[in-house]
Amino acid sequence: MRVFIAGIDGYLGWPLALYLAERGHIVGGGDLFLRRKWVKEMRSKSAIPIQGMSVRRDAFSDKFGTRLWFQRGDFRRYNFVRRCFRDFKPDAIVHLAEMPSAPYSMQDVEHCIFTMVNNLTGTLNILYAMKEVCPEAHLVKLGTMGEYGTPNIDIPEGFFTIKYRGRQDTLPFPRQAGSWYHWSKVHDSNHLMFACKIWGLTATDIQQGPVFGTRIEVMEDDERLFTRFDYDECFGTCFNRYCAEAVIGHPLTPFGKGFQKRGFLPLKDSMQCFTLAIEKSPQEGEYRTLNQFEGIYSVMELARRIKKVGKALGLNVDIRNLENPRKEMEKHYYNPDNSNLLELGYEPSHDTENTIKEILTDLIKYKERILSEVLIPCIRWDGARRKMEYIKK
Amino acid sequence: MRVFIAGIDGYLGWPLALYLAERGHIVGGGDLFLRRKWVKEMRSKSAIPIQGMSVRRDAFSDKFGTRLWFQRGDFRRYNFVRRCFRDFKPDAIVHLAEMPSAPYSMQDVEHCIFTMVNNLTGTLNILYAMKEVCPEAHLVKLGTMGEYGTPNIDIPEGFFTIKYRGRQDTLPFPRQAGSWYHWSKVHDSNHLMFACKIWGLTATDIQQGPVFGTRIEVMEDDERLFTRFDYDECFGTCFNRYCAEAVIGHPLTPFGKGFQKRGFLPLKDSMQCFTLAIEKSPQEGEYRTLNQFEGIYSVMELARRIKKVGKALGLNVDIRNLENPRKEMEKHYYNPDNSNLLELGYEPSHDTENTIKEILTDLIKYKERILSEVLIPCIRWDGARRKMEYIKK
Repeated sequence: MRVFIAGIDGYLGWPLALYLAERGHIVGGGDLFLRRKWVKEMRSKSAIPIQGMSVRRDAFSDKFGTRLWFQRGDFRRYNFVRRCFRDFKPDAIVHLAEMPSAPYSMQDVEHCIFTMVNNLTGTLNILYAMKEVCPEAHLVKLGTMGEYGTPNIDIPEGFFTIKYRGRQDTLPFPRQAGSWYHWSKVHDSNHLMFACKIWGLTATDIQQGPVFGTRIEVMEDDERLFTRFDYDECFGTCFNRYCAEAVIGHPLTPFGKGFQKRGFLPLKDSMQCFTLAIEKSPQEGEYRTLNQFEGIYSVMELARRIKKVGKALGLNVDIRNLENPRKEMEKHYYNPDNSNLLELGYEPSHDTENTIKEILTDLIKYKERILSEVLIPCIRWDGARRKMEYIKK
Repeated sequence: MRVFIAGIDGYLGWPLALYLAERGHIVGGGDLFLRRKWVKEMRSKSAIPIQGMSVRRDAFSDKFGTRLWFQRGDFRRYNFVRRCFRDFKPDAIVHLAEMPSAPYSMQDVEHCIFTMVNNLTGTLNILYAMKEVCPEAHLVKLGTMGEYGTPNIDIPEGFFTIKYRGRQDTLPFPRQAGSWYHWSKVHDSNHLMFACKIWGLTATDIQQGPVFGTRIEVMEDDERLFTRFDYDECFGTCFNRYCAEAVIGHPLTPFGKGFQKRGFLPLKDSMQCFTLAIEKSPQEGEYRTLNQFEGIYSVMELARRIKKVGKALGLNVDIRNLENPRKEMEKHYYNPDNSNLLELGYEPSHDTENTIKEILTDLIKYKERILSEVLIPCIRWDGARRKMEYIKK
């Protein structure tokens, strides 16, 4: 299949290009390199050094014997998106070209509006360009489990059938996002659902939990093929941030009580799931939602696991809870479904300890690149900007 | 109270300014006059001639003996919004400054994205400016009953309590909007809910049905105080468009079978409801939803009522169904609640026939301003642009 990846330079986009190429797909992509800019704005850098796109493309050629199709450009520009689809002629489009950080979106009115406009405009351009250029292509769009929030009932995959005052209907499951970023993803989900309904487009909306990991097999030890690894307060999700903390002897920093539960996913499982979604497309005109995660645990449990593995590696790992910069429930019911992916054939790796070991081992090599000053968050949901304090026991 | 109206030059904004001033409130507002520009873009004009803002302000002074506070400006610019709130010091803010047309948003990718960016940016700026300048003010935001779509169950006001797999929660009612415009309002509703939750702002989200009418009492016969009346395919809602059609001997044009039901509302009832929402604000920090309509009927029933009243006035009124340019259910269950407003004291006028008579009588005076060439829609939900045909019986 011809697979176009919007956001091919990112944490997930780059390994997905490699993973798909190894499976024999013809891969192309576009990127404006905004993620590199945003991480600089946070005064941080990827813990694992990554190459520019031209070196990445050379390494891709060396590995697969075929040139990676790539266009630098802005998905907020309709003509760019249309031209990509016209020239590349994708069978599937994977949309990863969004601003992916809750705290980044919560900084101030400018970052809030930037997030909304960037994410919504890119997705709408992709939908319109599909309609115009390749209405038979399958869109695989990255959403987030955070769209659902933490309701006091089970979380189905996208839709649920309910009775209300004696009547019944199947409706979109109510979304209760926890940041402007998460809301932008909710809006995107609604736009996908609507475009499939009115134009007959075909889409898979992936509600993914936080991903962790430094590598996938195909990278082997070619450093040119490595993907980025962020650990700053905006672009490092808690799993990866805790690992970075463990490596430099900084306490792991769960927010608040640390009972917040999420569905986490190893990087290699994320690649496997995306590939299943791409290769097993839904019916033409269908809008399909997949909840994509491997295991559910609280951030405190997560910190304890990383501490345990870190100790076995000889690291001195402590856990110190921080004030919570977010406005979120710290103790809550959480029971999301993910049977759709299992039915497609997803085989969860169930190997978190070894993945943690792999991450820590990879990071130890680059520990001098982990800047301790960007680890403690200062972006607060109430709009203030002040470093969070440790909670006294 | 000091009431700031964003979008004070519009169909609802202008009469609301008059209505509130007559009740003794201090009224101010802002507008960029985009509605005037959009209607020109449709090659149409208001059937009822309206004055520019300076004449309107003079008439306001003559009527109430006090100058209307007004700033021309763009709600997409944060500094403008903040300055308005700083200078005017509102107790309540009524937000009507959005692009209000479903077909306008469905024209093409540019109009889709314009609608999203315009509507979402304005609302986010208002929320951030409230937080910064007047966190105690009460935001009264105009949404639409169209946010809910037409589910096969009753429509509550914003939230509902449900059981699912043996557990219970109170959740936002799922929205199923039918156009990009309607989705922009859904996103706004979510943003209001979220801002109230994280910042303690206070808001009333009004899910209003289509409004009809030419005047409210306070205008008397001062033509300088009249409000606009649109009848083109984008800015004329079906009720007002049918009235314009009736007056010039053009067939009334329900879309499709015409069984689509909506909750309609006379202009004077809309003013009464907005005023109730403003004067009876919710608890501090509360996000309140009001479904705002007077009566529910199908567009076919509506056409028949207008035909009946038109005949009594000596007009030659025919009804001819048009192909439906929209993708919508034409026969469906529809049972929305509106008890919240009734509990606040809303007294529905229940006088549709006299309101129709008033509209037709007002329009007859200006019938030469009703351009028949803008009455038949050509904006189709599938993206094509071609005049709709009459359905052969």
